[in-house]
Amino acid sequence: MPTSEDLDAIVATVHQEMQAHLGEGRVADYIPALARVDPRQFGIAIVTCDGRTAAAGDAETPFSIQSVSKVFTLVLAMNRLDEGLWRRVGREPSGSRFNSIVQLEQERGIPRNPFINAGAIVVTDAVLAGGRPREAIADIAGFMRRLALDEAVSIDPEVAASEEETGFRNASLAYFLRGFDNLQSPVEEVLEVYFNQCALRMTCRQLARAGLFLAQGGLDPLNQIQVTSPERTRRINAIMMTCGHYDASGEFAYRVGLPGKSGVGGGILAIAPRRAAIGVWSPGLCEAGNSLVGQMALQRLVALTGWSVF
Amino acid sequence: MPTSEDLDAIVATVHQEMQAHLGEGRVADYIPALARVDPRQFGIAIVTCDGRTAAAGDAETPFSIQSVSKVFTLVLAMNRLDEGLWRRVGREPSGSRFNSIVQLEQERGIPRNPFINAGAIVVTDAVLAGGRPREAIADIAGFMRRLALDEAVSIDPEVAASEEETGFRNASLAYFLRGFDNLQSPVEEVLEVYFNQCALRMTCRQLARAGLFLAQGGLDPLNQIQVTSPERTRRINAIMMTCGHYDASGEFAYRVGLPGKSGVGGGILAIAPRRAAIGVWSPGLCEAGNSLVGQMALQRLVALTGWSVF
Amino acid sequence: MPTSEDLDAIVATVHQEMQAHLGEGRVADYIPALARVDPRQFGIAIVTCDGRTAAAGDAETPFSIQSVSKVFTLVLAMNRLDEGLWRRVGREPSGSRFNSIVQLEQERGIPRNPFINAGAIVVTDAVLAGGRPREAIADIAGFMRRLALDEAVSIDPEVAASEEETGFRNASLAYFLRGFDNLQSPVEEVLEVYFNQCALRMTCRQLARAGLFLAQGGLDPLNQIQVTSPERTRRINAIMMTCGHYDASGEFAYRVGLPGKSGVGGGILAIAPRRAAIGVWSPGLCEAGNSLVGQMALQRLVALTGWSVF
Amino acid sequence: MPTSEDLDAIVATVHQEMQAHLGEGRVADYIPALARVDPRQFGIAIVTCDGRTAAAGDAETPFSIQSVSKVFTLVLAMNRLDEGLWRRVGREPSGSRFNSIVQLEQERGIPRNPFINAGAIVVTDAVLAGGRPREAIADIAGFMRRLALDEAVSIDPEVAASEEETGFRNASLAYFLRGFDNLQSPVEEVLEVYFNQCALRMTCRQLARAGLFLAQGGLDPLNQIQVTSPERTRRINAIMMTCGHYDASGEFAYRVGLPGKSGVGGGILAIAPRRAAIGVWSPGLCEAGNSLVGQMALQRLVALTGWSVF
Repeated sequence: MPTSEDLDAIVATVHQEMQAHLGEGRVADYIPALARVDPRQFGIAIVTCDGRTAAAGDAETPFSIQSVSKVFTLVLAMNRLDEGLWRRVGREPSGSRFNSIVQLEQERGIPRNPFINAGAIVVTDAVLAGGRPREAIADIAGFMRRLALDEAVSIDPEVAASEEETGFRNASLAYFLRGFDNLQSPVEEVLEVYFNQCALRMTCRQLARAGLFLAQGGLDPLNQIQVTSPERTRRINAIMMTCGHYDASGEFAYRVGLPGKSGVGGGILAIAPRRAAIGVWSPGLCEAGNSLVGQMALQRLVALTGWSVF
Repeated sequence: MPTSEDLDAIVATVHQEMQAHLGEGRVADYIPALARVDPRQFGIAIVTCDGRTAAAGDAETPFSIQSVSKVFTLVLAMNRLDEGLWRRVGREPSGSRFNSIVQLEQERGIPRNPFINAGAIVVTDAVLAGGRPREAIADIAGFMRRLALDEAVSIDPEVAASEEETGFRNASLAYFLRGFDNLQSPVEEVLEVYFNQCALRMTCRQLARAGLFLAQGGLDPLNQIQVTSPERTRRINAIMMTCGHYDASGEFAYRVGLPGKSGVGGGILAIAPRRAAIGVWSPGLCEAGNSLVGQMALQRLVALTGWSVF
Repeated sequence: MPTSEDLDAIVATVHQEMQAHLGEGRVADYIPALARVDPRQFGIAIVTCDGRTAAAGDAETPFSIQSVSKVFTLVLAMNRLDEGLWRRVGREPSGSRFNSIVQLEQERGIPRNPFINAGAIVVTDAVLAGGRPREAIADIAGFMRRLALDEAVSIDPEVAASEEETGFRNASLAYFLRGFDNLQSPVEEVLEVYFNQCALRMTCRQLARAGLFLAQGGLDPLNQIQVTSPERTRRINAIMMTCGHYDASGEFAYRVGLPGKSGVGGGILAIAPRRAAIGVWSPGLCEAGNSLVGQMALQRLVALTGWSVF
Repeated sequence: MPTSEDLDAIVATVHQEMQAHLGEGRVADYIPALARVDPRQFGIAIVTCDGRTAAAGDAETPFSIQSVSKVFTLVLAMNRLDEGLWRRVGREPSGSRFNSIVQLEQERGIPRNPFINAGAIVVTDAVLAGGRPREAIADIAGFMRRLALDEAVSIDPEVAASEEETGFRNASLAYFLRGFDNLQSPVEEVLEVYFNQCALRMTCRQLARAGLFLAQGGLDPLNQIQVTSPERTRRINAIMMTCGHYDASGEFAYRVGLPGKSGVGGGILAIAPRRAAIGVWSPGLCEAGNSLVGQMALQRLVALTGWSVF
């Protein structure tokens, strides 16, 4: 492991190198709250398994974590349903866009994996478990606050409302799943929870902190809580590796070599097993919908630390 | 790292546990030479980066490595074309069967990755590089012999001939690629090399030995030859992780957590970065076309060694 | 044209021949009101352009016309939007099932034709035209009553309600269309009209009567009203020929050789241009979702009359 | 039926109206012999069931009939195999491009219809029937000469050779079919016949003359030979209507309303049942691969004659 000084220097280097790229990519514009984010922002935060933090840039600026939330609801659903979850959702890369409905039809309502939208909606339904949406939303937010050790984590009501107003494709996916009997709760309630979880606002530091248990066999090393089992942790990391970046997951594995999950808000959570969790954020997206500068930053970080799992 | 005694014990345990499963799965039967293989065989061999070997079962029995060969021709093609290769083939999981032609049409002749058949045919064309098929075949066989440190590695002419006689789907893929100008040599010549590379016969021990450089940043630690660069090595491992087991690659990452590549002969090469290369073999296949018992054995091996990259 | 005696004899022959097949096929069972229909029913009615009627079997029994209604809403939409309709929906056979969402994604929210569900939902939205669902439903029912010259034509409220309760796939299609901005009215309102139009109850005689204008260049020859233009009439017939029987439209053209439109209630409206309109009904469906005995009856009718357009 | 004077006037009118459009569309350029054809040509010929001919423009200029030949080999194959043919090829519109391989994979080697390339290759194999390619080619050419009553009908060797040299996609389709055991003869032999049949050179007049039996229940009214049965004739017309213009077959039915078959050489054969056969030709193609001006001409012809079957 690098010393704290080394880590600080690495993070500073990455931050410095990214300056030339700020503003590259295309900010998500399907809802106003995302469209008006200044694209020239970049933050990075590393939290190590032995409790150290290194951060640079806009690491304390909250952003909409969007699909990064899917990792955390997956943990909740796996804890609840264990292997039973895999009767309702697969674990294979999809080979198509995040919101594609094609494979869902070919595979009769079983989404390819928990990170494409259809799969994440099934996972959300598993977390809701037939209960009340408001309570499920509160549970998810509470889970994130505990993991981040920070009560400031919140859900952006404007984003949640905008998602709902424009979420026709997600509604289509949800009704499709319902038609194959793969949702337990009413479609509107599942979507309410889904849109709220996507509207979680967190900083890079909070995100890295919240994901740290995934670097440590499911044990949150700072507050000594076993969030999930070592086996499930390895499996979640495996799914992040093969499916975490939509139809550019292979590219991320190829360039970065760490399990990771991105969101259209520009955030990425990456896990260096047995070493650290990393949160990066920059709003401009590549064509596949992942943070362009965020991916570059992680590629450089891995080059400087040698943390690739390969 | 486990001691040699520990390694021997682990390998013996895995071998012992697999006895109950021998004969499970379905042997590939599209050519006679594969169909008549006794399904109740199982071999495992581990070669560590520090030069130790542990083996059990039928680790010295040669088998047809089939698609495992695609890893090695990929190394040759990357060494030759570097990043230029990726203009002709992608790096993303395909979300469909190994011989599917659907995505090839949608993506206008650019195969999704080098491990589905279409991608491997493009890689073979890159290795052939407009030269003579006989020489390319000799080059590939020679490369495998050097890596395996064993002159006994050979190509089974009966298998190569059978592949050619029954390889209509591969011929279809090759002509399709040719129609999109993604093959340089004549279709028949590319297929000749391709069918011969698939007909390589190796033992688990030879396979593990040959793949060892992938566990060590591209450096073959036993004969101190840099087979490929550290960066390319990480990238090949990443592609093995996301695409190495056809449409069950996610499942393999989830259950085993190592980069790996399977073949329909029942062999699997798995890489534990910085630790070891592992060859396993058992002829019965799962529905996705990967060795059923081979996958189980690797899952147990990883559980006993803690070698998962996650 | 056959004499009235000939027509009666032909209809009687067809009726007689179908007795051996009553009960073949599989009754639609996705809603209770359809599932409990006695499958051993068969009706046929012919109304000629010169005003004669020949009927046999259960020609006076009302049934749920389901997708046959799509022909009539298409007339309304074409009258309203003319060629503008074709910016929102295509005119090509789909090569896939009636409720497939795959092509809708590939063609970015433009359904292949007005007779697959997605296309019919767009047509319904065009008829609704931003107005009130109740009024649009009343307009459609009124249109059918005028065409059938029969105030007894009604909408079955139980069927409409059941369609709504189980219509998840149609809701999915509608939200998908909405996501591509191809619906003007709110999804729930479009679906309300759509489910009600599908719940129209008519007899074979009413159906043949209502479709007669399609055999006569758009002019209803009995009440001398020009329902639509000659050109539009030919075009609607063309779409019925190429797309009227889901993914068995080619089969229907091949066996029957008349423009026709089927519904999962077991009804078929067929048009013999310049001669007659024919309504047949028998609840058992073939695999593609068309009345099995209804198709047989039309094949025999055409053999006996020589009315094939080919 | 129009008088001969009327017919001449109609043909002259159509010819006149098309002058403004000469050169529109895009000439097929995948082989030199097609690419160098002067796009500003247009021919039309009508042969009526009672033996009259009306022609205008370049009606005596031979052109490459390409896929129009598929109608005639279909007749030969149906005469030989009767209903057995339909175990090897379907009768449904494909909903995709003429050379698409996607549905072929989904439907396990059974092409959707005899007019997409894969289906036509199966039909050619049925005509070849395990015999010698040279004899099958001579049979097909002889059949066309007899039907056209003209020994001048020939096969263009340059076109046939070019087709073979560039026909990678067709080779891919053929090997794919072979992989599903849906070809009886060796792939190379089937393709030899296929490429030669596509290279038939005919004039509009010859084409109309050769197709006349399809307007008359299979009876060639001029030489009183029953080419095929009335039933098969109706069925071939039905397939021409639903599948004759690739993925614009619905559009052709909608605009023209006659059974027809086009080729990328710019020719179209259309059938007005019980009236006439029509050959048109103009080299510029629409996006779907059908003669742009040819389709316009037929639309006008039908408007002037009232020959639409709808």
